[in-house]
Amino acid sequence: MPSISKKGIQMPESPIRKLVPYAEDAKKRGVKVFHLNIGQPDIKTPQVALDAVKNNTIETLSYARSEGSEEYRTKLARYYVNNNIPVTADNIIVTTGGSEALLFTIGSITDPGDEIIIPEPFYANYNGFSTASGVTVVPVISKIEDNFALPKIEDFEKLITNKTKAILICNPGNPTGYLYSEEEIEKLKKIVLKHDLYLIADEVYREFAYDGLKHTSVLSLEGLDQHAIVIDSVSKRYSMCGARIGCIVSKNVTFVKTAIKFAQARLSPPTYALIASEAALDTPQSYFDDVIEEYVSRRNTLIAELKKIDGVKVANPKGAFYCVAELPVKDSDAFAQWLLEDFNLNNETVMVAPASGFYSTPGEGKNQIRMAYVLNENDLKRSVEILAEALKQYPN
Amino acid sequence: MPSISKKGIQMPESPIRKLVPYAEDAKKRGVKVFHLNIGQPDIKTPQVALDAVKNNTIETLSYARSEGSEEYRTKLARYYVNNNIPVTADNIIVTTGGSEALLFTIGSITDPGDEIIIPEPFYANYNGFSTASGVTVVPVISKIEDNFALPKIEDFEKLITNKTKAILICNPGNPTGYLYSEEEIEKLKKIVLKHDLYLIADEVYREFAYDGLKHTSVLSLEGLDQHAIVIDSVSKRYSMCGARIGCIVSKNVTFVKTAIKFAQARLSPPTYALIASEAALDTPQSYFDDVIEEYVSRRNTLIAELKKIDGVKVANPKGAFYCVAELPVKDSDAFAQWLLEDFNLNNETVMVAPASGFYSTPGEGKNQIRMAYVLNENDLKRSVEILAEALKQYPN
Repeated sequence: MPSISKKGIQMPESPIRKLVPYAEDAKKRGVKVFHLNIGQPDIKTPQVALDAVKNNTIETLSYARSEGSEEYRTKLARYYVNNNIPVTADNIIVTTGGSEALLFTIGSITDPGDEIIIPEPFYANYNGFSTASGVTVVPVISKIEDNFALPKIEDFEKLITNKTKAILICNPGNPTGYLYSEEEIEKLKKIVLKHDLYLIADEVYREFAYDGLKHTSVLSLEGLDQHAIVIDSVSKRYSMCGARIGCIVSKNVTFVKTAIKFAQARLSPPTYALIASEAALDTPQSYFDDVIEEYVSRRNTLIAELKKIDGVKVANPKGAFYCVAELPVKDSDAFAQWLLEDFNLNNETVMVAPASGFYSTPGEGKNQIRMAYVLNENDLKRSVEILAEALKQYPN
Repeated sequence: MPSISKKGIQMPESPIRKLVPYAEDAKKRGVKVFHLNIGQPDIKTPQVALDAVKNNTIETLSYARSEGSEEYRTKLARYYVNNNIPVTADNIIVTTGGSEALLFTIGSITDPGDEIIIPEPFYANYNGFSTASGVTVVPVISKIEDNFALPKIEDFEKLITNKTKAILICNPGNPTGYLYSEEEIEKLKKIVLKHDLYLIADEVYREFAYDGLKHTSVLSLEGLDQHAIVIDSVSKRYSMCGARIGCIVSKNVTFVKTAIKFAQARLSPPTYALIASEAALDTPQSYFDDVIEEYVSRRNTLIAELKKIDGVKVANPKGAFYCVAELPVKDSDAFAQWLLEDFNLNNETVMVAPASGFYSTPGEGKNQIRMAYVLNENDLKRSVEILAEALKQYPN
């Protein structure tokens, strides 16, 4: 048999994936599973986006322009300007999801063996895209005690080598829910300018900033035009995860020209999803107001309920729709599996994401889990009840 | 400014792309441009696929399963079995276009520095995906005099090194229109078994086999289960280029498991396009009969008209909807640009794809062009008239 590549062997498996068969088995046994494990919101997609697709008049489903149509990018630029991000259509490349935006970005700025520094815990697929590109993720640890705030700049400095090409942040953060302050972004600006690195910000949760706090884009800072790259997506903003439309935004002309070559090689983003995404830009503000209100209320419920459980430590998320909690267990992978395999409370259980998959330092996060508050409040409350009872019964 | 990667610098630009501004200028001057340059068919998408999307009842546009739903893959497997390709749903990974199928395949079987042998001329984006993965394309030349038939097996043998991981063919071929015979596929089988290589076949034009000839899939041969990988797509089959749905098909379990890890990292193929693609499997045979009849008739017209021009040599395509022609010019890149920039016949001109972009051996194909017969017969006839007159006037 011909051999699989080293890269293929190294590609990480999704940290949730290995639990899926256990969840399926639980369902087969008649156990109801509350899914706190995945960032798939239950929120409805804006009607204006759904209608645009239903009312399309396509007769031949043709390729779209590789970097997205002039019209869509112009409308997108207007959205960014309204969000205090002064860019033009030429600064935007439309991609097939935030995933492809990351892949093109990493491909454009790194060669195999290069390094990207990422505060951990981080979105697990950053590992996948880095491995696929032969790039080494260099983690810098952030702490649950600090709500996963930006690590000290000295901690970044220590890790910078001549292989370092970029610092990558997710803001607000998945899995942490942490929202970086303007001051923290300014600190990152200083260090990337000093070492001439790219500052890549995954800002797909931009709208999900709570408690009156303001999101600061890396593209809103002066003097970072050549260094700042934003990864974006319609997935979370409009609850359109299945659209697979995202974009890269940068004022660095050479970088944009390079990334477009990657876009050309794959020809086109998906046409139907472009129709939905362009229409979604007309979503009324009331939609977002309602969604944010709903998430804040869910977060408050989830955090309050979790804090009632003995031995549970929980970070205070200010954005996105995730929180990381520390549990009184040794190995949350084993615990998450046990929840599905061996436990139920009146035929109900919960599926959570073990946090180890969000760390690249071995052994870190072993007693942590990530929960996505993408369920309604009653289900969230019930989920925490189940978790509390499970922790009592768990043979630790 | 932080540096762009070597990989980013090496990424090839689309061979047609550089002509686009000249085509746009021509249109601004009021010149009508007949587009023979791109494989975007004018054929209508099957109504059953269009209707499925228009009648969708989605309220929350959710992620699809990374490798495609059980249901879609089961229906796809049935399609393959009906096409003499005995596979099951487990042998299939649904991808975002044939492009992603190629990217995941190359990522799963090669590491940077590895080599893939490809008969040239070949689909230009094979270069892009290889460069993005740090893989070297090793071309083996096929000749217009032989209609671009499979090069001699000795020519392949000479190029095989310990870095060679696969032979990649496109069947029927883009840009050549050549349909490999069963005998040729058997020859490839022998050599990949002898050297333990993968045999990757891009079979996205499977349905487009003419003159009573039968397409032979690499998956229909016995003894190739561990070696054969098929790249597929709905783009051409159903004139759904903008859907961006394709798939990888292979019976090699280790390979499929590896490629699924790449699929997981990008989360999901596009949901709306999956609806269209699944419905498209119910397209009646009459649709294909009409489409094939149309393409055969177009091909006959195009080839007959081209043969009337002095100094033009044209291969006899038996599949797909492309043909490569040799022109009495020194540099078809310059000629294609001149057609758009300096020439018109009663305010009409043609856009063709210079063939140099389909070769990786420097200097090869300099006097060749690729034409896609994706226009109706009247427009095709007129296009050849324009080309004939242009060749008369061209200051060679």
